[in-house]
Amino acid sequence: MEELPGTLGTSASLALRLGQAIFAVASLLFMCLDVEFYSYTAFCFLVTVMGLVVPWSLTLAVVDIFSVFIKNPARQRGIISIVVIGDWVLSFLSLAASSSTASVTSLLLASDGFCSVRLCTRYQLAAAMAFLSWFLSLSSWLFNLWLLPSL
Amino acid sequence: MEELPGTLGTSASLALRLGQAIFAVASLLFMCLDVEFYSYTAFCFLVTVMGLVVPWSLTLAVVDIFSVFIKNPARQRGIISIVVIGDWVLSFLSLAASSSTASVTSLLLASDGFCSVRLCTRYQLAAAMAFLSWFLSLSSWLFNLWLLPSL
Repeated sequence: MEELPGTLGTSASLALRLGQAIFAVASLLFMCLDVEFYSYTAFCFLVTVMGLVVPWSLTLAVVDIFSVFIKNPARQRGIISIVVIGDWVLSFLSLAASSSTASVTSLLLASDGFCSVRLCTRYQLAAAMAFLSWFLSLSSWLFNLWLLPSL
Repeated sequence: MEELPGTLGTSASLALRLGQAIFAVASLLFMCLDVEFYSYTAFCFLVTVMGLVVPWSLTLAVVDIFSVFIKNPARQRGIISIVVIGDWVLSFLSLAASSSTASVTSLLLASDGFCSVRLCTRYQLAAAMAFLSWFLSLSSWLFNLWLLPSL
């Protein structure tokens, strides 16, 4: 079978997974350090979703590392299906969380007194990082979905 | 070729398209009648996206009606690809818009004085209708995507 870049067990997939984890961690750091995020529902949602994305991406990154360096790509239909479903759910959740955070932040910026410019910039950065993480997660999902019918 | 329910040109697809259009129109009505929606970015985004969903769904509903009643299902790979891409983009946009609206509304409800309970309930209903429209749009997309490799 031809090796499609970006599917589970390739080095491109490893790069995508590491990118997802890094952006999700960056989003968590921007949101959590010194910030009382738990007073807004949308921010709690973002933290929850990013807290799910990090272990998921790191687990699959470990699988990719094994496949790339120990040369044993385990491509069973069941495993790829689980990966596709997980990526799909997480990408929808990340998109919803990042757009909620972005809209709430723009509302807070527009109404004075709710957050300082410095704090709101951090919220916006957290939303942007979550958006990038969504984009990479969507790419992983598309590559694996493309592989699925040929298994 | 076996007739997969929900793909372009079937009666199930017609029902899905009509549902999308009805929910999108309901969301627009809840948002626009008597309400100053244009003061919030998230609400403008919702109105824009729902304004795109309505003509898209109605156009495809007309195609479905022709296929169902005049018995001429035009299933070319190019047409289905365009439908799949359009559904995909619109489903992502609807999800982002409905989650933004829902989070902004919950924030407005939490901070007193920004909107009355009656107004906020209408915003929430608009978000719920947009969410239902997203769900139907996602279903259409999945059915057509499933059909695509067999063409």
